[in-house]
Amino acid sequence: MSHLSFDFNNLNNLIPENSACIQSCHEMLERGSGSGSDFLGWMQPAVNLAEIEKLAKSLRDQCEVFIVIGIGGSYIGAQAGLTFLKSSFPNQLGKDGGPDIYFAGQNISSDYHSDLMDLISGRDVCVNVISKSGTTTEPAIAFRFFKELIENKYGADGAKNRIVVTTDISKGALNQLVAEQGYRKFVIPDDIGGRFSVLSPVGLLPMAVAGIDIEKVIAGALKGKELYSRPSVEENDAYRYAGLRHLLYQKGMTTEILATFQPAFRHFSEWWKQLAGESEGKDGKGIFPASVEFTTDLHSMGQWIQEGRRTIFETFLLLENSNRQLKIPASQNDADGLNYLAGKTLDHVNNKAYEGAALAHKEGGVPNLSITINDRSPEALGQLFYFFQRAVAMTGYLNEVNPFDQPGVEFYKNNMFKLLNKPGY
Amino acid sequence: MSHLSFDFNNLNNLIPENSACIQSCHEMLERGSGSGSDFLGWMQPAVNLAEIEKLAKSLRDQCEVFIVIGIGGSYIGAQAGLTFLKSSFPNQLGKDGGPDIYFAGQNISSDYHSDLMDLISGRDVCVNVISKSGTTTEPAIAFRFFKELIENKYGADGAKNRIVVTTDISKGALNQLVAEQGYRKFVIPDDIGGRFSVLSPVGLLPMAVAGIDIEKVIAGALKGKELYSRPSVEENDAYRYAGLRHLLYQKGMTTEILATFQPAFRHFSEWWKQLAGESEGKDGKGIFPASVEFTTDLHSMGQWIQEGRRTIFETFLLLENSNRQLKIPASQNDADGLNYLAGKTLDHVNNKAYEGAALAHKEGGVPNLSITINDRSPEALGQLFYFFQRAVAMTGYLNEVNPFDQPGVEFYKNNMFKLLNKPGY
Repeated sequence: MSHLSFDFNNLNNLIPENSACIQSCHEMLERGSGSGSDFLGWMQPAVNLAEIEKLAKSLRDQCEVFIVIGIGGSYIGAQAGLTFLKSSFPNQLGKDGGPDIYFAGQNISSDYHSDLMDLISGRDVCVNVISKSGTTTEPAIAFRFFKELIENKYGADGAKNRIVVTTDISKGALNQLVAEQGYRKFVIPDDIGGRFSVLSPVGLLPMAVAGIDIEKVIAGALKGKELYSRPSVEENDAYRYAGLRHLLYQKGMTTEILATFQPAFRHFSEWWKQLAGESEGKDGKGIFPASVEFTTDLHSMGQWIQEGRRTIFETFLLLENSNRQLKIPASQNDADGLNYLAGKTLDHVNNKAYEGAALAHKEGGVPNLSITINDRSPEALGQLFYFFQRAVAMTGYLNEVNPFDQPGVEFYKNNMFKLLNKPGY
Repeated sequence: MSHLSFDFNNLNNLIPENSACIQSCHEMLERGSGSGSDFLGWMQPAVNLAEIEKLAKSLRDQCEVFIVIGIGGSYIGAQAGLTFLKSSFPNQLGKDGGPDIYFAGQNISSDYHSDLMDLISGRDVCVNVISKSGTTTEPAIAFRFFKELIENKYGADGAKNRIVVTTDISKGALNQLVAEQGYRKFVIPDDIGGRFSVLSPVGLLPMAVAGIDIEKVIAGALKGKELYSRPSVEENDAYRYAGLRHLLYQKGMTTEILATFQPAFRHFSEWWKQLAGESEGKDGKGIFPASVEFTTDLHSMGQWIQEGRRTIFETFLLLENSNRQLKIPASQNDADGLNYLAGKTLDHVNNKAYEGAALAHKEGGVPNLSITINDRSPEALGQLFYFFQRAVAMTGYLNEVNPFDQPGVEFYKNNMFKLLNKPGY
């Protein structure tokens, strides 16, 4: 069963016309004949889940706090999964018996890391450090702090059972530590780039530690693989979405706004911005990805979307069924005039807000698309991850860029290393 | 003393040239002769702080949890202040002896509100409901839930001491409740619109309940008023910023990216997007405001910024001094190659990351500006709020729109009310 549907009725009469290009780009993906084809491992999500599940179970029993150290694709996919599946208040997961999960090394903020160390002070800590090279500045700095904290608290021997490394199969600084210290290790496959790694141990171990059924996440991804590997755009919603967003881009709609109606999607939107922005923004082109959270931002960016420059399109990411239903209570005096909604669910009102906004924005000159998933289930999440990965790869090829490299990321790093007097720079 | 500095050295030889327009727009603001001039109350931040402080003190003693119910300008300014001044983990403020503060009614998500009610279950709750009309759908729904919760727990009489209303001076649904139930009340002045209301009781009461010295926030705002009411662009950084961003917009840099290097700025960026987007995005024009959090997003949107379409400019919002300094520890084997940074502070590295990114982006064709504030102090925050309010008002007039209305927000609401069968629609 598919957990996802795609709708494109609010396009202001734009007619899809690029299925021939999609056909040839599909061949490039399937045959590995396009640019960046050394990085197509994400197309076949296949992981030894048993080993991850076993370790995750013991970490859940052992730790009160689980710190995930990584940046870019090494943290945002896991965070997207946790927020989507577990709680709108993702730092307060611990109620289900597992550890609270925090992220570190995704920035260089002194106050952030100080606040974090205060928060976890006195609690039993485990760490998962995720970095292919082991030398990326941000996570390497954070790992120094947390390694020291754990070694001081539990000794080098205790640290063995509290530090888990996710890294390259053989190269890099973290493999040296694994060999010296005996840390447990998971491998980031060579053919999977950071922003496509959520369905590898990078994303799956933290999700499993949070108590998420990762077999179901992968089952959803495999459903996505089945549906979104179909060659015909008529039968493939990921390609349909990719084709339409490329067409909109060509018509001058150069900013795409991902609009959700649930705080549970907050970090998913960040994952999507990395995936789309880093894959497509190069060679002086690419859709600019932005995100909003409605109805909150209908009272913020809503004005701009309704009446600002007409260079945007909107992709609604919708949830069909909340985990729980709240019904609006009746009130005796009806001072707020809301009794016409008494007994209705919040989902009902939220859904009408979506319909009202989609129509208003369309009429205001903002074409919009919508992606709806059934529920906050691991299967739906897995399928959704796969949907966007496939769609973004396709859009990249349609726009004639390599969707799997990120050459621009090096420029600031080189400047920074020079300014920091790093040896060799 | 000013808590803020502004720099525009990375403009790729763009020369400011619109000071004549700034002069005439300044007159419009000062004389109240421009469009929307009924809403200039924010220009003179003046509030009876004693009353707010007194109530805040008693609420701090009385409540374990303080729920702020509002949407748009009725919540985001307070949230910006809390995250900036208190903690990178803003839902976990309670450690300083005051209540944990949560926001509600800023969306219609069933799961968000269910999760929130779980989180606060069994704890002593107070509520501040903020709405000028008292009938805005989202906060009105949330207030029904929390009013019921408080009345069930403490009785109607107990609720009197636990519900605080911030609303219009005389009109609206909440005034009816104040009269009937005896809730305490603060006034949203008639001449202050939602997105300009953070320095009124709307933003100040929640900040005071969090233990923030609101007298210092207002002192900073008054410093801002002094500095940013100067007529000459040479002496007025807010006007300089406004003039430059308008010029960049005219040159085709139609998206502004606010880039911070501290999670403490997270909700400040959301406040800024509402302020700028809702003030400027109308009549088919306006800068599109987006935000990123570096260095996190240098590993995400960094690629797009470096090499995507050249239609963006960047405004860095920087913090000179963190609250606390962390120094990078040395490591014996230096496997990660970081020993060249041993003994350096994170602020040092973060600052070089900024310099490296600013230079790389400038060279990549992205003009950039920077705003630096001294520290995470209430004075600096107050001045910063005022800086952006003045700058956005100026940019609106330069771009010949009314920066104080938001006509586009009604369209989706009207559609939604029709779909919900609201009486009268």
